[in-house]
Amino acid sequence: MKKRLIVDIDGVLADIYGQFRKFELEDFGHNQDLSKITGKLEEEAFVNGEIYMATQGFFRHASVIKGSVEAIEKLNQRHDLFIVSAATKFPNSMAEKQEWLLEHFPFITWEQIVFCGTKEIIKGDIMIDDHFKNLDKFYGQTILFSQPHNLNRIENGHSRVTNWKEIIELLS
Amino acid sequence: MKKRLIVDIDGVLADIYGQFRKFELEDFGHNQDLSKITGKLEEEAFVNGEIYMATQGFFRHASVIKGSVEAIEKLNQRHDLFIVSAATKFPNSMAEKQEWLLEHFPFITWEQIVFCGTKEIIKGDIMIDDHFKNLDKFYGQTILFSQPHNLNRIENGHSRVTNWKEIIELLS
Repeated sequence: MKKRLIVDIDGVLADIYGQFRKFELEDFGHNQDLSKITGKLEEEAFVNGEIYMATQGFFRHASVIKGSVEAIEKLNQRHDLFIVSAATKFPNSMAEKQEWLLEHFPFITWEQIVFCGTKEIIKGDIMIDDHFKNLDKFYGQTILFSQPHNLNRIENGHSRVTNWKEIIELLS
Repeated sequence: MKKRLIVDIDGVLADIYGQFRKFELEDFGHNQDLSKITGKLEEEAFVNGEIYMATQGFFRHASVIKGSVEAIEKLNQRHDLFIVSAATKFPNSMAEKQEWLLEHFPFITWEQIVFCGTKEIIKGDIMIDDHFKNLDKFYGQTILFSQPHNLNRIENGHSRVTNWKEIIELLS
């Protein structure tokens, strides 16, 4: 039986920092030094972060994280794969995220997509996520995708990866 | 520790048959006899059912099923309650359903809402649903909410209820 693999969108498939920084540049005319926001959660690092996330197009126009399309296509063959995104805080983001998935990951079907508020309700075997709050409550294998907000933190039992090549090696 | 209760929207909180029949009346000038569609799934009973569900406003303007608001408010105190709705087949329905919940069940927070394609990924203790496909794959206690499409079928281990008063008695 295939193992169920739970994959996050923001910060794992979609380059959300790129979007925050694009919006920040438009707002303030400059970007913060990345080293200064390392270790801060997105909402601490970007003062208007919540406003940006509620803005139409924020999620729809995010760039794809390098290597994720090829990796997900491969993992989708071997696993019972679900894309699970915390999204109900921003209800309009859900249709945007699904459109974004359809564009960049057309082999993912609507049956494989979940939008929720908290991921503690999700049942699976392996979870790939960039947030400790999601991984810490998951009972299976946990893979921490490095993002500025989670750097400088002890992994707490999760396997840290910095790119999709490492995930493919880890799950081979 | 509170038991986790998973509650469906369509056919359990929202009167979806009422919406199908309203749209059908507008389309054809008359309604089918309910007795003739008993036992048929919605998509078999209503020839344009899929078109109706993809129509803006279909979910937003559904009536609330009698007794559900008071019952959910009570159960929300005693349980770790989640509203889980199969919705990713119709991406625009998600924001509509969340707005509908906010209007009729304002005590439910965004953290308690999940939209998915299939419910087999959901972890919980008790599930209330009108579809066998969801209940049959759930490992906890299962409550079948009677709707025309599930009448005439053997309960297959699920507890059949016909209204929210019976659910409150069952879970007391």
